Amino acid sequence: MRRTNAVLAAVLLIAGSGWAQEKKSEKPAPRASRFGAKMTTEAAIKDLYERWATAFRARDIEAIMAMYARGDDVVAYDIVAPLEYKGAAAYRKDYEEFLGMFTGPIEVEFREMRVVASGDVGFVHALERISGTMKNGQKMDLWLRATSGVRKYDGKWLIVHDHISVPADMETGKAMMDLKP
Amino acid sequence: MRRTNAVLAAVLLIAGSGWAQEKKSEKPAPRASRFGAKMTTEAAIKDLYERWATAFRARDIEAIMAMYARGDDVVAYDIVAPLEYKGAAAYRKDYEEFLGMFTGPIEVEFREMRVVASGDVGFVHALERISGTMKNGQKMDLWLRATSGVRKYDGKWLIVHDHISVPADMETGKAMMDLKP
Repeated sequence: MRRTNAVLAAVLLIAGSGWAQEKKSEKPAPRASRFGAKMTTEAAIKDLYERWATAFRARDIEAIMAMYARGDDVVAYDIVAPLEYKGAAAYRKDYEEFLGMFTGPIEVEFREMRVVASGDVGFVHALERISGTMKNGQKMDLWLRATSGVRKYDGKWLIVHDHISVPADMETGKAMMDLKP
Repeated sequence: MRRTNAVLAAVLLIAGSGWAQEKKSEKPAPRASRFGAKMTTEAAIKDLYERWATAFRARDIEAIMAMYARGDDVVAYDIVAPLEYKGAAAYRKDYEEFLGMFTGPIEVEFREMRVVASGDVGFVHALERISGTMKNGQKMDLWLRATSGVRKYDGKWLIVHDHISVPADMETGKAMMDLKP
């Protein structure tokens, strides 16, 4: 944890200032239809991602990890090495290193999100833009591909798998970090 | 389609020669247990990936695409650009370009595969090793991260989403194509 409590207090203030209210008013009421149960499930999973985005913007590691299952249920393939992070504790350290690269809040935007779920299992994928100012003064503005697997634990949806990446250029060996949708 | 019919005939011969029989004898009988239904679902999804591997080894594009849903139900994030392939037809072209880089069969191996499914939706992730000889004479031997979303259509599991990648080195900008699990 590289952040100071002062920074934490500041970002929590930002996080609590408007976006959460906007989310609340945007949240659709459950629809009564033939697919009523499924609509509610998809809305619940989208809400998980909205809460994840709020936590990520605020660089709040506790709030971020609250979106994940515990222990070995979590296996993640992140944009950075190694090939996989096994367990919530390992993935938390990876998050902390990433969040520690930034100064101030991180912006995050999802595009073309698809949620597919049935019973207590689902998956989500989207293009995800991450932007912010890094501690070395450089701006990061990066479009990623993000896929997650989610499970319902005692009525609560949690993330058990993330896969985050950019494409590779097989001829030059470069990671393609300047692509846009 | 860069392959000739002669090559196609040769790879089909290889594909039919042994692996399919080995797979048949390995396939577990459905277990009678409290989780009987779920075991059968996971076995069915693993079988989908075994059949995908057989088709991929043989570079048989028709057999590969038979593992996927149709039309817009397929959205894929591949190891190569662009960020996403929208629709089965676009992803098929991507496959054809990849398969066309190789001469002879491609080896594929999964490690640490996890299948999670409920009702008619599931996801799968694994580390995936791909190796083979390319037309320029170079050997490819690459560990990838592979995540898929699957759905059951009229009792048949099909892939609706793939996410294939290697990590990126954020400092050098390189795609990390020499990592091993």
